[in-house]
Amino acid sequence: MKVLTFGEIMLRLSSQGYKKLFQNDLMETSFCGAEVNVAVSLSNFGIETFFLTKVPDTSIGHEAINTLKYFDVDTSKVIYGGDRLGLYYLEKGVSQRASKVIYDRKGSSFATMKSYEVNWDEVFTGIDWFHFSGINPALNVEINEICKMACSVAKEKGITISCDVNYRSALWTEMEAQRRMKALMSYVDVYIGNEEDAEKALGLKAKNSNIVNGQIEIDDYQEICEMIVDLYGCKYVAITLRESISASINNWSGILYSSKGKLCRSREYNIQIVDRVGSGDSFSAGVIYGLLNNYDIEDTIEFAAAASCLKHTQEGDFNRVSSHEVMALVEGNGSGRVIR
Amino acid sequence: MKVLTFGEIMLRLSSQGYKKLFQNDLMETSFCGAEVNVAVSLSNFGIETFFLTKVPDTSIGHEAINTLKYFDVDTSKVIYGGDRLGLYYLEKGVSQRASKVIYDRKGSSFATMKSYEVNWDEVFTGIDWFHFSGINPALNVEINEICKMACSVAKEKGITISCDVNYRSALWTEMEAQRRMKALMSYVDVYIGNEEDAEKALGLKAKNSNIVNGQIEIDDYQEICEMIVDLYGCKYVAITLRESISASINNWSGILYSSKGKLCRSREYNIQIVDRVGSGDSFSAGVIYGLLNNYDIEDTIEFAAAASCLKHTQEGDFNRVSSHEVMALVEGNGSGRVIR
Amino acid sequence: MKVLTFGEIMLRLSSQGYKKLFQNDLMETSFCGAEVNVAVSLSNFGIETFFLTKVPDTSIGHEAINTLKYFDVDTSKVIYGGDRLGLYYLEKGVSQRASKVIYDRKGSSFATMKSYEVNWDEVFTGIDWFHFSGINPALNVEINEICKMACSVAKEKGITISCDVNYRSALWTEMEAQRRMKALMSYVDVYIGNEEDAEKALGLKAKNSNIVNGQIEIDDYQEICEMIVDLYGCKYVAITLRESISASINNWSGILYSSKGKLCRSREYNIQIVDRVGSGDSFSAGVIYGLLNNYDIEDTIEFAAAASCLKHTQEGDFNRVSSHEVMALVEGNGSGRVIR
Amino acid sequence: MKVLTFGEIMLRLSSQGYKKLFQNDLMETSFCGAEVNVAVSLSNFGIETFFLTKVPDTSIGHEAINTLKYFDVDTSKVIYGGDRLGLYYLEKGVSQRASKVIYDRKGSSFATMKSYEVNWDEVFTGIDWFHFSGINPALNVEINEICKMACSVAKEKGITISCDVNYRSALWTEMEAQRRMKALMSYVDVYIGNEEDAEKALGLKAKNSNIVNGQIEIDDYQEICEMIVDLYGCKYVAITLRESISASINNWSGILYSSKGKLCRSREYNIQIVDRVGSGDSFSAGVIYGLLNNYDIEDTIEFAAAASCLKHTQEGDFNRVSSHEVMALVEGNGSGRVIR
Amino acid sequence: MKVLTFGEIMLRLSSQGYKKLFQNDLMETSFCGAEVNVAVSLSNFGIETFFLTKVPDTSIGHEAINTLKYFDVDTSKVIYGGDRLGLYYLEKGVSQRASKVIYDRKGSSFATMKSYEVNWDEVFTGIDWFHFSGINPALNVEINEICKMACSVAKEKGITISCDVNYRSALWTEMEAQRRMKALMSYVDVYIGNEEDAEKALGLKAKNSNIVNGQIEIDDYQEICEMIVDLYGCKYVAITLRESISASINNWSGILYSSKGKLCRSREYNIQIVDRVGSGDSFSAGVIYGLLNNYDIEDTIEFAAAASCLKHTQEGDFNRVSSHEVMALVEGNGSGRVIR
Amino acid sequence: MKVLTFGEIMLRLSSQGYKKLFQNDLMETSFCGAEVNVAVSLSNFGIETFFLTKVPDTSIGHEAINTLKYFDVDTSKVIYGGDRLGLYYLEKGVSQRASKVIYDRKGSSFATMKSYEVNWDEVFTGIDWFHFSGINPALNVEINEICKMACSVAKEKGITISCDVNYRSALWTEMEAQRRMKALMSYVDVYIGNEEDAEKALGLKAKNSNIVNGQIEIDDYQEICEMIVDLYGCKYVAITLRESISASINNWSGILYSSKGKLCRSREYNIQIVDRVGSGDSFSAGVIYGLLNNYDIEDTIEFAAAASCLKHTQEGDFNRVSSHEVMALVEGNGSGRVIR
Repeated sequence: MKVLTFGEIMLRLSSQGYKKLFQNDLMETSFCGAEVNVAVSLSNFGIETFFLTKVPDTSIGHEAINTLKYFDVDTSKVIYGGDRLGLYYLEKGVSQRASKVIYDRKGSSFATMKSYEVNWDEVFTGIDWFHFSGINPALNVEINEICKMACSVAKEKGITISCDVNYRSALWTEMEAQRRMKALMSYVDVYIGNEEDAEKALGLKAKNSNIVNGQIEIDDYQEICEMIVDLYGCKYVAITLRESISASINNWSGILYSSKGKLCRSREYNIQIVDRVGSGDSFSAGVIYGLLNNYDIEDTIEFAAAASCLKHTQEGDFNRVSSHEVMALVEGNGSGRVIR
Repeated sequence: MKVLTFGEIMLRLSSQGYKKLFQNDLMETSFCGAEVNVAVSLSNFGIETFFLTKVPDTSIGHEAINTLKYFDVDTSKVIYGGDRLGLYYLEKGVSQRASKVIYDRKGSSFATMKSYEVNWDEVFTGIDWFHFSGINPALNVEINEICKMACSVAKEKGITISCDVNYRSALWTEMEAQRRMKALMSYVDVYIGNEEDAEKALGLKAKNSNIVNGQIEIDDYQEICEMIVDLYGCKYVAITLRESISASINNWSGILYSSKGKLCRSREYNIQIVDRVGSGDSFSAGVIYGLLNNYDIEDTIEFAAAASCLKHTQEGDFNRVSSHEVMALVEGNGSGRVIR
Repeated sequence: MKVLTFGEIMLRLSSQGYKKLFQNDLMETSFCGAEVNVAVSLSNFGIETFFLTKVPDTSIGHEAINTLKYFDVDTSKVIYGGDRLGLYYLEKGVSQRASKVIYDRKGSSFATMKSYEVNWDEVFTGIDWFHFSGINPALNVEINEICKMACSVAKEKGITISCDVNYRSALWTEMEAQRRMKALMSYVDVYIGNEEDAEKALGLKAKNSNIVNGQIEIDDYQEICEMIVDLYGCKYVAITLRESISASINNWSGILYSSKGKLCRSREYNIQIVDRVGSGDSFSAGVIYGLLNNYDIEDTIEFAAAASCLKHTQEGDFNRVSSHEVMALVEGNGSGRVIR
Repeated sequence: MKVLTFGEIMLRLSSQGYKKLFQNDLMETSFCGAEVNVAVSLSNFGIETFFLTKVPDTSIGHEAINTLKYFDVDTSKVIYGGDRLGLYYLEKGVSQRASKVIYDRKGSSFATMKSYEVNWDEVFTGIDWFHFSGINPALNVEINEICKMACSVAKEKGITISCDVNYRSALWTEMEAQRRMKALMSYVDVYIGNEEDAEKALGLKAKNSNIVNGQIEIDDYQEICEMIVDLYGCKYVAITLRESISASINNWSGILYSSKGKLCRSREYNIQIVDRVGSGDSFSAGVIYGLLNNYDIEDTIEFAAAASCLKHTQEGDFNRVSSHEVMALVEGNGSGRVIR
Repeated sequence: MKVLTFGEIMLRLSSQGYKKLFQNDLMETSFCGAEVNVAVSLSNFGIETFFLTKVPDTSIGHEAINTLKYFDVDTSKVIYGGDRLGLYYLEKGVSQRASKVIYDRKGSSFATMKSYEVNWDEVFTGIDWFHFSGINPALNVEINEICKMACSVAKEKGITISCDVNYRSALWTEMEAQRRMKALMSYVDVYIGNEEDAEKALGLKAKNSNIVNGQIEIDDYQEICEMIVDLYGCKYVAITLRESISASINNWSGILYSSKGKLCRSREYNIQIVDRVGSGDSFSAGVIYGLLNNYDIEDTIEFAAAASCLKHTQEGDFNRVSSHEVMALVEGNGSGRVIR
Repeated sequence: MKVLTFGEIMLRLSSQGYKKLFQNDLMETSFCGAEVNVAVSLSNFGIETFFLTKVPDTSIGHEAINTLKYFDVDTSKVIYGGDRLGLYYLEKGVSQRASKVIYDRKGSSFATMKSYEVNWDEVFTGIDWFHFSGINPALNVEINEICKMACSVAKEKGITISCDVNYRSALWTEMEAQRRMKALMSYVDVYIGNEEDAEKALGLKAKNSNIVNGQIEIDDYQEICEMIVDLYGCKYVAITLRESISASINNWSGILYSSKGKLCRSREYNIQIVDRVGSGDSFSAGVIYGLLNNYDIEDTIEFAAAASCLKHTQEGDFNRVSSHEVMALVEGNGSGRVIR
């Protein structure tokens, strides 16, 4: 089974520990991006994974891509050119102080990609699953167009399509999001999102929902999942549930709904957070892994929730654990005894 | 509105992370001190702030002062001379292990300052608010005398005076503290202290108070506030309430009492601590900011509590957040969602 | 009073902070080992302590030993020779992600030691207490033999013998462990172990015990303690009780049982963990310290539990606190107020 | 005397020590830019200095500006707005391996500045000296236009104008450079450049010059200086002479020519380089400082050469030394004895 | 063209900067080994390169191998199993203080490899060039045997064989070396060594050679090259010439001799050393690259000398430069001007 | 043979690498002082060495002393008490930028020591050699007095006395120095100093000496040595000769003169400096070691020069090499070949 993800890879510059940005003169660097995070996690789970993006043909662009080779992601489809690698600054939050992300991604090689640069027919040869996130269409009209072309070709070729809605208010308004996302959703087999994405990016809302602290009733989620399946014909709907007690402590679980009408909720993890950026992406990878392996929805959502729980405990956007490490958490009790 | 704070600026040497002092061969350095912490925080809130101190005329002294310029603190009144910059060693505590502070401040330029070195009349030109803490009189008789002169001139000029009692058993006994502090209190408009300061530095105690873990009843605080207003004619009494669950987790809130008879208690924050040194000072800055802006006492104490809550989440003595960031916490829920 | 501990000293290589092994290109180094950890802690408590081991006669071996001199451990009995210093890689866990230990200790100078290399009669001259752990017999038949010789000579000389069972599934099976440990136990005056060690290394089990999360009833422990005393004639049985809420938060307490029939349980600490490796060893040192000083069993177990609580808050295997710092926790409330 | 410099401030990201870019996961950060480097150095010499630029109104932009306050540069004229702070990646060279600079400055707030955003008449009020470099006109037509407007207003107001040609082949071709620079040169009072700039940016060449290793004869320089004075009416021509023995060792000196016909060459320094980026800018600051203080040309060029020699020994683009430290080198022998 | 190298990959632990081993508590880690260094360098030059080794099937072993994927080295032939990854401690020398290497490689997965574990016929399918070094036969009889089998199969298949003699006195005596190396040399097409290797490992010596400071006359080298060609039938003999002025400064050049009777010496580089470990391996890679590309011997030796000159300027054993960067040095003057 | 040194131990705070003081927020810490440097070096050479000082009875003071135990220095005679540990800030120079030392040692425990605190008779029991430096008498009258008492008791007991003049203009004037040093010199058996010390601290000058760059003729030194022997009855005069080419490169050698009339000069080392602080002390240790071992003066001065050459290549004040490492340099050529 082969998965391809398509999106931007960026440089992340984060201050050390809990320092404020530029509080000292060192930044930790890593490469990341919604879809590349999914690719790396899937590859770490043992899935043959391809990543398609565009990066500048400089040592900066090449280093970004070499990093992926380290994780065995196939980068043979990467396009080189354009002006710059997008980047973002991260100041990690703690306790009552929220994490801050400052994007500097305008004019990046990826954001200025043109639709004629990808031959989707060729790209998709041999691919079984295609994944992207709502950050792509959020970037601009051209990238939105490329996503639509990709979906249309994938659909034709019988490739399963998953999309993590990933609504970012810094990138577009809810109105813009709804316009573009609704059009794309008709191609999507597996919908993935957080508690708020369905409302913000699709305008869907359960009657009594109250999303402060993620305290929505399970019935509300069932209602939203049904709407998504009814409106867009998705086969699965996966939703992350984050209860933010503080920037340091979150409760975390996931829901998976099958179009056959069943909804499962995973165990809930009380997490002491090391780095929560990329946790949604690690959840997507977990969902894809479970479904690719024909896990039933209980096992799939437990795998996805455990995978993303572990991501919260790791520095950087990437989920570096293997599927065995995820299974150990699924089957264990998360009590964190030393392994020796 | 212009604020002037007066006190010592010191070098802080702290071991990295949770290492014991000298466990490895690196120390993190920063500059700090009760009153300069207040000045930096107020300047970060957008208040025009001056800091008066004395530092050695060496690159060590100049670096300490340049650091303040970075925060837009006006340092034009600083006096250069004397032998050395005081310093302290900090070993950060965690869980059941308490933080340790070892002072090395004897003979510092500030501690050996003479009263004739300051022309308070000139210093206070155009100033609206004067702030100092009980660490000044604790240093020695001369500095105590300088504080009295400052208060007397400030009073004459109609400048509001705030004092953070800041009792430190390492610097003086309760008896000495009470002798000097009582004399100074008669000038003070805004009293600031923690749960224990009123007892230790002024000998004031509510009837049934039990300060272990800060579990004093609210009525007791009302009683103490009334005493302070009655005895010293203060217009406001502000008290921090810290419940130390461990060195890593504290509950934190504040009380503000107006001489008009009203007492308000802020929301309580459950804090995962990054660095608690300087949190009292950030509270003082919050109180001063609120009162300077004519906030009512509810808004003032909420601002001060939120400001000092955020200080706990930052490395170093300084509170680096803006007033907007404080307001975001006051108005939000402290759940620490990523800002992007 | 003089204590001698005997065992391996290893190099520990741990990734920085919560990084995965090799996530960046820096490792933190320290020297450690079950018995040397006990020796360092006892020396820090002010006990005259000797450590016997074998290390290679290279700068690596000598650095390991010099480190002990820093802590005033007497290293005059150390044997130099052999091929290499054993080492282990440590990846510190957090939240639901468990710590990982990867041993690389085969063929070490210690593991290849021969029984004729130690003259126990000489070694034990003037010694009052001998301590070792179950890691020694776990290494191989020869080291097991050396331990037996040591015990036999110590017994003859009236030296008190303590043994921390310290069962490690990575080193031997339960069957092997039981065979060797039972033979050694007949020499032991003070048995030390965690909740599971009695079962794994001695085959002893209370009737209704359920060791998940350490939630064994106190009666079960009484039962196990009695068995140990009955079977092996131990004078004291000390057991650590760890409730792993996560890799970051543990509840921690200890039990001490006297052959005179009394069982005491210490206060329980809710610990935010910095580094839990070596905490069992710091408990052993606490038990030995209490008994050497003729503390009664209540005071001994409170001292041991507080000592090992503090170890959890320190980086590295060694417990760097003094007996005064331990007593401050025993007598205080662990609320972690700043000491200045 | 007040100096204003105008140009871009950028973030510099450099790998640690002599690591290749991204060889590990840490980058050293600093803020810099040709004209801001000059401003910081002049301020460190005690000159009242203003810096005009445009940065984004984000914490990134504000941090860049706060850094300048630390050095007492007046930043009150800074414009906030636009999309991003330009940046560059630096890999420091050593021995035969050259340093590498990769620009990522397209679309920066400065580069997208519009001419109507600056009221030069206001900006220049009270200013005595205006400095900019050839990097400004290299950016684009609009910035070139802004420079021309600035020069024209400055000329009218009798402000001395200095320009460091600073030719960068990565930014424009020699043809483009010559077109724009020739037009600007007619305003310039003090020409500053390296050995090659006059040829590349102005098309001026001595008859027999051979620039490999900077081994041009002194007569050739005299010839070039005369041409510049004749063609553009400059009062002074300052040229840096760098003999690159390797990326680690350079010989460094400077030439200053007065329109009155005299040429002086400074002492030559054999430098073990710590960081050579910004050395040209520190030379410009030295020349400006000497001329502002009415030093004669011998003293001016010795000051400028010593100042920039010291810059080579410091990390970062900024020259952090005071004028006293420069004079100590001018008057001493550079033998580097410990000062205590 | 496909190259395969065969040898051990080890963990290198080096103290930071010029610190002595264990002077602080941090070690820099990297993976390396004579033959893997060659593989990485060739891959960086754009050659399709395979590396065959055996590493433990633990996260330590896998990380070592993943590092190679980052450099595009094909690791599909790697064997997993055995006990441990060999390692060495490195203390970098400077000035008159020599670098120190302490091996801890006994019992490694590679050193305990058995001849039946490799099917050389399969391994060599499609391979054009086989490279190994004298460190392999130095390890033990079995590895020597495996090398012989490899050579014999390679010879049969018409694969070019290169061997870097790489004599290490810590691993074997000159007598042992000569016994094993002479047997292997009969298979070797391209002999590579330093000034002393021919004497130490093959017993060959020119009449008047004096190897102190590498000051052998060029005629002596011609003589030795001729001997090697005569005795063993090699087609090419490549020798590195290092003149150690100090641990920080070396003169470096190379000699290449063709069996057709021509000897070329490269330009000599005066190098300020960052890290000299692995420089011989980078020279081997340069020689192989030149010959694979049918460069004539002048161009080949210039390429190899420049490549290894650049290695000296990089941290770690690996030569991270591309063939373009090497060519830039070959064609340039090594003056280290900034590239921007 | 037992040596005792007496002096101050201080904390050294140095900026990282070649950063200016406070350029970033990290300082490297180490403990040091003229006489403790000698003690550590002698202990590393295998001499039984005692160090007498006074440090505060805080964790700062105890850590300083524990560091010495690591090096096997006997610290049983150390006195605990007083206010503070003296310290100094170090900014390491490079190339033309000189190192800067800023003392903060006033009021230290050592500097405020009283003569009645030492019972020299007891202290000197079993001691064969006593060493101190001119920094002691420079501190104040009381310490000068203590030194005199020490010398007088030592003399009586037949203990050899060595003194490193160590003139520091930051501590006293030449006039003060000459007054106190001349009085002490009458006790001294082994005079140690640099090129300038004899003139500055004793007023002795050869007729035609020109000390810039240490370029004094050998005859001048002979003349000075003779004067010292004649005036003070010293048995040996040892002088270091430093030619400062820059802060990074020095030529270094030593002279030893015997009262029997012979003068030897060591080999001269051209050193690439890592850290030159403490090099004079390492020379003293080398001289003492040679004379204690009855080396002749040629061997002694070669040993001392080589020892102090190696000190220049190490971070921190301490010379960490063994006598074997020194001998390897004496007997080798300093070419810095890798040892493996």
